[in-house]
Amino acid sequence: RLRELLDALHPADVADLMGFLSPDYREAVLAHVDPEALAEIISELDTEIREDVLDAVAPATLAKALEELDSDDAADVVDDLEADKRAQVLAAMPEVERVAIETSLAYEDETAGRLMQREVVAAPQFWTVGQTIDHVRKDGDELPELFFDIYVVDPSFKPVGAVPVSLLLRTKRDTPLAQIMEPVTEIAVDLDQEEVAYIFDKYHLISAPVVEPGGRLVGQITVDDIVGVIHEESEEDILALAGVSDAGRNADVMDMIKSRLPWLLINTLTAALAVSVIKAFEDEIEKVVTLAVLMPIVASLGGNAGTQSLAVAVRALASRELSAVNALRTIGREMWVGLMNGTALALITGLAVYLLFLDLRLAIAFGIALIINLFVAALAGVLAPLMLDRMGRDPAVSSSVFVTFVTDFTGFFAFLGLAALILL
Amino acid sequence: RLRELLDALHPADVADLMGFLSPDYREAVLAHVDPEALAEIISELDTEIREDVLDAVAPATLAKALEELDSDDAADVVDDLEADKRAQVLAAMPEVERVAIETSLAYEDETAGRLMQREVVAAPQFWTVGQTIDHVRKDGDELPELFFDIYVVDPSFKPVGAVPVSLLLRTKRDTPLAQIMEPVTEIAVDLDQEEVAYIFDKYHLISAPVVEPGGRLVGQITVDDIVGVIHEESEEDILALAGVSDAGRNADVMDMIKSRLPWLLINTLTAALAVSVIKAFEDEIEKVVTLAVLMPIVASLGGNAGTQSLAVAVRALASRELSAVNALRTIGREMWVGLMNGTALALITGLAVYLLFLDLRLAIAFGIALIINLFVAALAGVLAPLMLDRMGRDPAVSSSVFVTFVTDFTGFFAFLGLAALILL
Ligand SMILES: [Mg+2]
Ligand SMILES: [Mg+2]
Ligand SMILES: [Mg+2]
Ligand SMILES: [Mg+2]
Ligand SMILES: [Mg+2]
Ligand SMILES: [Mg+2]
Ligand SMILES: [Mg+2]
Ligand SMILES: [Mg+2]
Ligand SMILES: [Mg+2]
Ligand SMILES: [Mg+2]
Ligand SMILES: [Mg+2]
Ligand SMILES: [Mg+2]
Ligand SMILES: [Mg+2]
Repeated sequence: RLRELLDALHPADVADLMGFLSPDYREAVLAHVDPEALAEIISELDTEIREDVLDAVAPATLAKALEELDSDDAADVVDDLEADKRAQVLAAMPEVERVAIETSLAYEDETAGRLMQREVVAAPQFWTVGQTIDHVRKDGDELPELFFDIYVVDPSFKPVGAVPVSLLLRTKRDTPLAQIMEPVTEIAVDLDQEEVAYIFDKYHLISAPVVEPGGRLVGQITVDDIVGVIHEESEEDILALAGVSDAGRNADVMDMIKSRLPWLLINTLTAALAVSVIKAFEDEIEKVVTLAVLMPIVASLGGNAGTQSLAVAVRALASRELSAVNALRTIGREMWVGLMNGTALALITGLAVYLLFLDLRLAIAFGIALIINLFVAALAGVLAPLMLDRMGRDPAVSSSVFVTFVTDFTGFFAFLGLAALILL
Repeated sequence: RLRELLDALHPADVADLMGFLSPDYREAVLAHVDPEALAEIISELDTEIREDVLDAVAPATLAKALEELDSDDAADVVDDLEADKRAQVLAAMPEVERVAIETSLAYEDETAGRLMQREVVAAPQFWTVGQTIDHVRKDGDELPELFFDIYVVDPSFKPVGAVPVSLLLRTKRDTPLAQIMEPVTEIAVDLDQEEVAYIFDKYHLISAPVVEPGGRLVGQITVDDIVGVIHEESEEDILALAGVSDAGRNADVMDMIKSRLPWLLINTLTAALAVSVIKAFEDEIEKVVTLAVLMPIVASLGGNAGTQSLAVAVRALASRELSAVNALRTIGREMWVGLMNGTALALITGLAVYLLFLDLRLAIAFGIALIINLFVAALAGVLAPLMLDRMGRDPAVSSSVFVTFVTDFTGFFAFLGLAALILL
């Protein structure tokens, strides 16, 4: 009964179910599934549970299961095994599959080489549609279970074109592939996964051939894996902007602290630097305590405005809408926005300050400080990520700390400085 | 020569090129491309440029071009036309294409109905592989240019299974479809695009059938359009967290102000509320001005810690890793992280405060306030998005404002209150 139920479920749903079961039950359930299903379920499990399950499965069973997966998914699982178990599992696998996994793991993390599967359908240029279909029918076992494009290769195994399977299906058998093939977008094996995702998005690709430095076809990347990459990369950006490093899923409390405390410590330093401005104006604050009440507003609104520009700029950089070509124009627009939002806020809050404290000079100092800080905030928000990007660094990482520092510093300095000048 | 060059380029690259040309040049270039290429280029253009180009193309030419597109892409272009031109273009199109576009535009924005194309390959259950292949060969003109799955339908046109094209290709001609078809994941026509993207990601789909409330097949969604949705939705979250509404691409300065100023005004109100705490402690600050120097640090570190929890929670909600099942456990972990990061910061900065000001009671008030604020920050950061989500609202929108208010208020109140108790 359990077996029937498991067969009826998608491996991704079984993997979800595993999350609700205790480890003992998990093992009992997984003992009932065949190698192919086991492989697919394992490849869908969350990292944390996956490690538990992998510990419980015998190396021989695991080796048999992994043979059923595409090499990218198999490598992904093997990557999660501990060193000695990994050796046992790899030793129990057939040569071809073992080499495929070892090759995949030899590529750097987050590169095309790691994303690709070795299994492809390639056909020589001189084949006809009929020959290709016969090849697929006959040698099905060596080909990927599912494929979307047939790569046409020259004698040195370099891709020269691609034929979508649906085009192959609808074309007459005696047509040469060379006649119907479409231009192909090659992916270099060491390309960063973020670049790969950009290419897939731009050209609406379903699959793309991966080539070695010499140009030889070594594998393919399919769009379902790109969907995962896009999620990962946007998660990276959201968390980096919030000052959280290295997003572990299902992280435990220690991992969470490790990913957050360092950034808080850096923030402490920049905060100390910013408030040293306040220390310099202690005498003025003692005379007019209202300054202490109003200064956080100037700093905080600057911080908010800076965060806005920053998020827009990081997003635009990630989607290639912001580049060297339009950087100046974008900076110019941000400056305008900063100036105009600053003026709008200055008028509204300046009036409120005047009505509350009945002190025109205080209201003027407050308003002008606000305009200055929002202008600086907009500028810092767009310049910080642009400069990081130009330096080849990730524009989302550490730019928030910088922007917050700049807006706190400017907010305190402009307001207290102006107040000292105008009021005292 | 220009024509040859244009033929060699992918429509997405031509669209990129258009961004560098002046409007006059654009029109000159586009006059050289045939209707099919024109359609594809227009569908790849950025919104801002697209509107210019659409103005310049004659309704009849546009109608001819749009016929070449899948209905989802055609509807997307028509959606950008002004009312009178839209009527002219639609009137110039053949009945079938016009109805497809009008139906598509009748569905709400950001639903499956908007994402789907009407063009599908459907086959009755009783057909064999051979019959299906012959159908595709013979009636190719009515079928989508590119397709990845053939949907097997019952007599009432409800999908009962799907056959990937590569499976069709490798199966013997006399095999009935019913024997090889795989279970199909149906998408309801009014499903939100974020849910659709989740389903594609979870089940690694390349395409999926879209069904009406009665269960009838009405179209299909393909994964290349889902890639765009994932980008859009993660952009929405990043910008919402930063307090920017409605991400217009290539927005002009007025749009930028409209998307940012309202949030800054709300922030002004919450900041005023938070600093009213400072006002209540004016006497204490007058006596010990150092309080004014240190209070922004407590508030700011709380804000940073709150932003961290918030970003992690919003991300986890978006990827369905945080749900009713593990909410309590997640909240518990956040409370631990807040307490421990707070304690770590309190020890380090408390010591620094003591060494700088040689006042143990000041250092203790500062340290305890920091622990309280980081604890509250972690709690607010995870509770705000969870509660918004429970209320059916977007957890990314407006939660930053709430968290910042809570941490500013708590930071000022805890530090100044403790200082008043301990010091004075
Ligand atoms: Mg295999
Ligand atoms: Mg595009
Ligand atoms: Mg794969
Ligand atoms: Mg990463
Ligand atoms: Mg990355
Ligand atoms: Mg990135
Ligand atoms: Mg702040
Ligand atoms: Mg059509
Ligand atoms: Mg998955
Ligand atoms: Mg489409
Ligand atoms: Mg949207
Ligand atoms: Mg949405
Ligand atoms: Mg959303």
